[in-house]
Amino acid sequence: MASPTNRRSSDKRERILSAAVKVFARNGYYNAKVSEVAREAGVADGTIYLYFKNKDDLLIKAFEDRMTWINDRLRSELAKVQGDALDKLHRFLELHILLAIDERELAEFITVELRQSSKFIKEYKNQKFGEFLGLLSEVIKQGQDEGLIRHNIDRHTVSRALFGACDEVLLSLVLRKEVPEGVLDARMAELTGLFIEGLRAHRQL
Amino acid sequence: MASPTNRRSSDKRERILSAAVKVFARNGYYNAKVSEVAREAGVADGTIYLYFKNKDDLLIKAFEDRMTWINDRLRSELAKVQGDALDKLHRFLELHILLAIDERELAEFITVELRQSSKFIKEYKNQKFGEFLGLLSEVIKQGQDEGLIRHNIDRHTVSRALFGACDEVLLSLVLRKEVPEGVLDARMAELTGLFIEGLRAHRQL
Repeated sequence: MASPTNRRSSDKRERILSAAVKVFARNGYYNAKVSEVAREAGVADGTIYLYFKNKDDLLIKAFEDRMTWINDRLRSELAKVQGDALDKLHRFLELHILLAIDERELAEFITVELRQSSKFIKEYKNQKFGEFLGLLSEVIKQGQDEGLIRHNIDRHTVSRALFGACDEVLLSLVLRKEVPEGVLDARMAELTGLFIEGLRAHRQL
Repeated sequence: MASPTNRRSSDKRERILSAAVKVFARNGYYNAKVSEVAREAGVADGTIYLYFKNKDDLLIKAFEDRMTWINDRLRSELAKVQGDALDKLHRFLELHILLAIDERELAEFITVELRQSSKFIKEYKNQKFGEFLGLLSEVIKQGQDEGLIRHNIDRHTVSRALFGACDEVLLSLVLRKEVPEGVLDARMAELTGLFIEGLRAHRQL
């Protein structure tokens, strides 16, 4: 699947959204100006308002667009996994943490800039994030059906906890100037070990 | 230990910091005005600038003050635990999630408003947060020494992951209008189960 920032698109709306992710990540949401997004996208300032109501709207639409891409990627990559639910969980965590390398601006946008709009956090019913948690929850359900994951857990809370843990570790990676590959592998191994052991159904001794 | 928002203090600086947490939580960091903090604290607008350089400085000082309180509380509560490192870990998670009830404004300030200053996240060397992670890391170390926690983990990464998971679950609680006590207990049980199982050293079968 093509990267969201690299895919070719003659669609102005798409170009504006990509530019918004880039500019928000670089300058910060509150400091970023709509005119900078316009320049980055190569459109006139006024053009942005043909597609988006204001900067808040641009933030929300950019988030929805990128989360759709993330969810689609997760769905298709998980479908390719030849293995059980624990293998899928492993792949899920890996794909999320890999954003720090594959899509650094997107990772920065999600972990740092997105929380900068109170409106976004408090008022926006975050359906795409719900879908993301739903994908994680399905993997856990599959693991329970396979007898690999404990039944005495609340899938929704555990999905949030997993996301929170990954998001925090991703944030710590994004805030570094560079991420050596060994560091990334080590972080993934920690998260995978922690959560797979935490969820695993153990045979009674 | 007295709550940071209720403790009596004739100290203006303290009153301004308490007011800042309250106003930032209520109105959002970016919307909040220094004059509102002054009104809440019962001081003249100019007084604030005797103690703090600007709104960013007020945010950082308020954070440091509250994190000092959180760290002190954790330290003293952990010292009271009669039991092993897993009991301490349980208490740690419990105390963190209890912020959603005990110190709702502080919880909202930390999970939502604090991330709204790019400056805070990107440029400020967060020593108090480092101390918080250090307390968690010490408990994990103790558990390893006691043979209760696996040795093949990186304590620093695991501490961040634990914090991230708790922070996300705390955020989901803070964004609800009310938190019924049963919900809180259920969330704590999930987090505790997940992480204690995830870290536990298992006897080989």
